[in-house]
Amino acid sequence: MPSFTTKATISSFGGKLFKLSHPSSSTGTNMAINIYLPPQALSGSGQKVPVLIYLSGLTCSPENCSEKGFFQHGASKRGLAVVYPDTSPRGLNLPGEKDSWDFGEGAGFYVDATVEPFSTGYKMESYITKELPDTLFADEEFGKYLDGTKVSITGHSMGGHGALTLYLKNPGKYASVSAFAPISNPSKCPWGEKAFGGYLKTKEEWAKHDATELVKGWRKGDDLKMLIDVGTGDNFYKQGQLLPENFEKAAKEAGVSDGLTLRYQQGYDHSYYFMASFSDDHVDHAARYLGLL
Amino acid sequence: MPSFTTKATISSFGGKLFKLSHPSSSTGTNMAINIYLPPQALSGSGQKVPVLIYLSGLTCSPENCSEKGFFQHGASKRGLAVVYPDTSPRGLNLPGEKDSWDFGEGAGFYVDATVEPFSTGYKMESYITKELPDTLFADEEFGKYLDGTKVSITGHSMGGHGALTLYLKNPGKYASVSAFAPISNPSKCPWGEKAFGGYLKTKEEWAKHDATELVKGWRKGDDLKMLIDVGTGDNFYKQGQLLPENFEKAAKEAGVSDGLTLRYQQGYDHSYYFMASFSDDHVDHAARYLGLL
Repeated sequence: MPSFTTKATISSFGGKLFKLSHPSSSTGTNMAINIYLPPQALSGSGQKVPVLIYLSGLTCSPENCSEKGFFQHGASKRGLAVVYPDTSPRGLNLPGEKDSWDFGEGAGFYVDATVEPFSTGYKMESYITKELPDTLFADEEFGKYLDGTKVSITGHSMGGHGALTLYLKNPGKYASVSAFAPISNPSKCPWGEKAFGGYLKTKEEWAKHDATELVKGWRKGDDLKMLIDVGTGDNFYKQGQLLPENFEKAAKEAGVSDGLTLRYQQGYDHSYYFMASFSDDHVDHAARYLGLL
Repeated sequence: MPSFTTKATISSFGGKLFKLSHPSSSTGTNMAINIYLPPQALSGSGQKVPVLIYLSGLTCSPENCSEKGFFQHGASKRGLAVVYPDTSPRGLNLPGEKDSWDFGEGAGFYVDATVEPFSTGYKMESYITKELPDTLFADEEFGKYLDGTKVSITGHSMGGHGALTLYLKNPGKYASVSAFAPISNPSKCPWGEKAFGGYLKTKEEWAKHDATELVKGWRKGDDLKMLIDVGTGDNFYKQGQLLPENFEKAAKEAGVSDGLTLRYQQGYDHSYYFMASFSDDHVDHAARYLGLL
């Protein structure tokens, strides 16, 4: 039986965007997910295409980046699929889950929560790294199009944090990583302190979900295969929510900064206008490591 | 004194998107407008860039296409500015103005209304063809970037109707025209019948705002310089709201169909996903006639 319910199928840049949902055992909810299949997947050749997972930022659903990020433009050109998961479970009705935009619904931070009641359902790390790919690549409808051995990851803001941390924690799982305006040292910024404080019991757990801490565990000479873009006009950057400098410093100290391309984009903000302007570059970054360029 | 109030300036594809408003004597209201200046305009060379006016569809404001249409991608590459006007006056508080999504606010249909009370303020034809360009190209802040002698026009749905009719009524005013899913024969579709019935007193007036009627007045051999894309999965097309066949037939009978490129895009719908997939083509169409390609 197919695992996904198709809510809409939309033509986009020669391929198809599928708006789907599926029951998740990690979260105990139905999870929304969008998947873009490029024309190369749908050509009838039977050739499977590599996959780029895009993790969204605070308050976002799979819809925002599908409409405004323009990853489909590059994905169509290079021949990779894009998977847009949701940012949290929805509809659990836990106390406090909807009280703020930067915690709870729409703000799962890609961790497995250990603090009650969020430890029920807020299992976004397991969902993104295990359940979703296991389900998707075995799915009878979509699995035949997707090469589950060739997967890269990217994301924006909270999703950039998710992409960096899930990549750094799982060497070999993803072919490359990139991020737009990632929360790069969540233990030391207000967003991260609030979220980690609410989801995770101990400071030791915090460190396991902090890119700046995780990169310290990489070995000198390891290739990070990492592209990060940050806009210099990004108010969240200016407010110290992103702290890419801390990450860069830790990468340098670990001796792995040769594999890090960190670009400061003059005047760009935190929005989808910023991402759309550089999403082709991020698709190309993934495409190189996925054997498409 | 500058004519426009700047609400936001956003970096996009190497250029800048300006979210503006200005007092309009045509409508008697403040009109919102977005303008994209490509990097070529901002290079400091003093070279003015050609302009593509984009007319939005029903319910839309300047925001929708700025975020989701992807025109900035092509405009940045080719070096043209994009002007995104609003779709009607807002805030006049006329009776019935907000009762439906396809008439009144957000649905000005690019005509000068002759029926009261809409004849007060619903002067979108005058606004788009006269007041806006006169104001913009003379403006001390923006005029210096824009070549008011090189202007093309495009639009979506109701805005496609606007682009086609304003182009056909004003030979020589625009260098070329294109449209996505335009309402091509409004006198014969429900949207057009409702809007024209509400805004215009006589059937003679209807004909002056109907692309299929207007093209009959063109002379055999005139070059239409027109590109139209319609999605075959577009529900409004299927429901007979667009009627591009009627327009094509009239263009053929007038002997001007050599200058018409009408493409049916397999499976595409009426959405911004459709437009984003082909906006590069429409920018290139304009760029050719504006001397950029």
